[in-house]
Amino acid sequence: MKYHIADERWGIWGSEGYEKYLLNFAFEAKFHPSVPDKIVENYKVIEYLMAFAYYYYPLYDEAIEKSVVLLERCVKTRCKQLSISLSHSVSLKNGAQKDKSKEYNRLINDCTAAEPKKMIQCELHNLRGVRNFLIHKENYSYTGPIGMPILLRFINVVNILFLPEQSVVLMKKEVEKLQKKLKEYANCGLVLNRQNKRILLEKISIEEAILLAGGWKYSLICSPIFLDIEEKIKNHNYSKQIELEISGLSIDDNSITCLDCDTGEQIEVSKTNHPKNISMLADFEIAKKNC
Amino acid sequence: MKYHIADERWGIWGSEGYEKYLLNFAFEAKFHPSVPDKIVENYKVIEYLMAFAYYYYPLYDEAIEKSVVLLERCVKTRCKQLSISLSHSVSLKNGAQKDKSKEYNRLINDCTAAEPKKMIQCELHNLRGVRNFLIHKENYSYTGPIGMPILLRFINVVNILFLPEQSVVLMKKEVEKLQKKLKEYANCGLVLNRQNKRILLEKISIEEAILLAGGWKYSLICSPIFLDIEEKIKNHNYSKQIELEISGLSIDDNSITCLDCDTGEQIEVSKTNHPKNISMLADFEIAKKNC
Repeated sequence: MKYHIADERWGIWGSEGYEKYLLNFAFEAKFHPSVPDKIVENYKVIEYLMAFAYYYYPLYDEAIEKSVVLLERCVKTRCKQLSISLSHSVSLKNGAQKDKSKEYNRLINDCTAAEPKKMIQCELHNLRGVRNFLIHKENYSYTGPIGMPILLRFINVVNILFLPEQSVVLMKKEVEKLQKKLKEYANCGLVLNRQNKRILLEKISIEEAILLAGGWKYSLICSPIFLDIEEKIKNHNYSKQIELEISGLSIDDNSITCLDCDTGEQIEVSKTNHPKNISMLADFEIAKKNC
Repeated sequence: MKYHIADERWGIWGSEGYEKYLLNFAFEAKFHPSVPDKIVENYKVIEYLMAFAYYYYPLYDEAIEKSVVLLERCVKTRCKQLSISLSHSVSLKNGAQKDKSKEYNRLINDCTAAEPKKMIQCELHNLRGVRNFLIHKENYSYTGPIGMPILLRFINVVNILFLPEQSVVLMKKEVEKLQKKLKEYANCGLVLNRQNKRILLEKISIEEAILLAGGWKYSLICSPIFLDIEEKIKNHNYSKQIELEISGLSIDDNSITCLDCDTGEQIEVSKTNHPKNISMLADFEIAKKNC
């Protein structure tokens, strides 16, 4: 069908077939239950734009533009929830007063001032800047999936925007607490045991925490070691961090156990003193220094 | 496939299958050669959005929003062509001067002041109003194909924007001349002879004319008569006007001949005195008065 032919521009991203494309470039968002239904529904537009960009590459840019435009609507919705007026009184030249819609800039300032501990003012203004650039841009260039981080930032900031402030504070404290605990796991050999595979890690970290009805969930970032750094740089083939959504976290002296939220399987990260591992870690440190 | 299931909301529009949907709700634009390639390419986004809205209804609204956002970029491109600066000097509170991007409002005023005879200032400001409403809207409602006229107006105004002013004046004069000529065809029985079918008309009109490399092209609007007005109103089943893109126009005392640009076939509209036709026209006038 005319509108259902794969856009060959995806070839530069090494896409192979639609299913693989969806896996790499389109994604559903995870929103917590306090994000209003209308916003979750509107995000679907973004998801469909990503899905159909397979047939017309510039639709990916539409997805990005849509997210930063939608964010303004999210800020307005949050302002309403916080009883912040969307308009203000301005003085006219003749001295009379007139009700005028607040500018987006002002709405961000007002809603972040009401919930300062969320610390999302900079992020919202930054994404407002992206919005203004995209909406008013003069040229016709395409960003493609290079702009994907904008979409991820949109999802993150919307999730924070619609949480109660005290929940965000609680989450920040939880992350700080865990980061302190994980200091014991820095500068030592670590092995990730997952899906019957053992992977030697350089380091691990916990970046986010959220308290849902089912208990705490965390994002666990594992950085595997690799020895062929030079070759990877030459071929632009960089190893990815392993990002896991986990629950049921337990941190002991020598090992961390948790559940992978996607598969339900148990994950373990344990300290290692095995001479082979220690030697590989040493080689990795040398390879890093030499590259 | 997950993203390729027809959105059942199209059912309210009586859509039957994808091919019929495309025919009714998605369309390629016809732009003349002076419309910059980048704009023609960007319109493709709108076309794809219409095409894929079959799978997710709200994408139709994205198409409409995209058109009014793209129009700002078109105005900027035209300003550049006319050597109108996109920025202006503003005085700061401390007396210093600063270069600032002109607002869209101002850009419309500047570019239409440079080519006033095109008479598109109101239309551009009106579509700017639609843009502002859609970009800043607080709710999450959908317009669907009710907003289709916005897309048609976008295509028309972009075509005028990128023509030389004298061409637009010439076109307006051509339409006026033909409308004068067609006065002889008002208030008399007319028969449209097309594709071996004869259709009795209430009236005809020529609304647009454009001079291309191949000569003049016109839009010919034919309004067929129908006698079941009351039933049509009851069932919301309104007869459509027949809108034809024609060339090779020749207007004689008793008949108009031209070519259908889409099919290349000859079309004829001729005056009729046949008693049956005259009687049907009289019945139509009575039916109109009674409804």
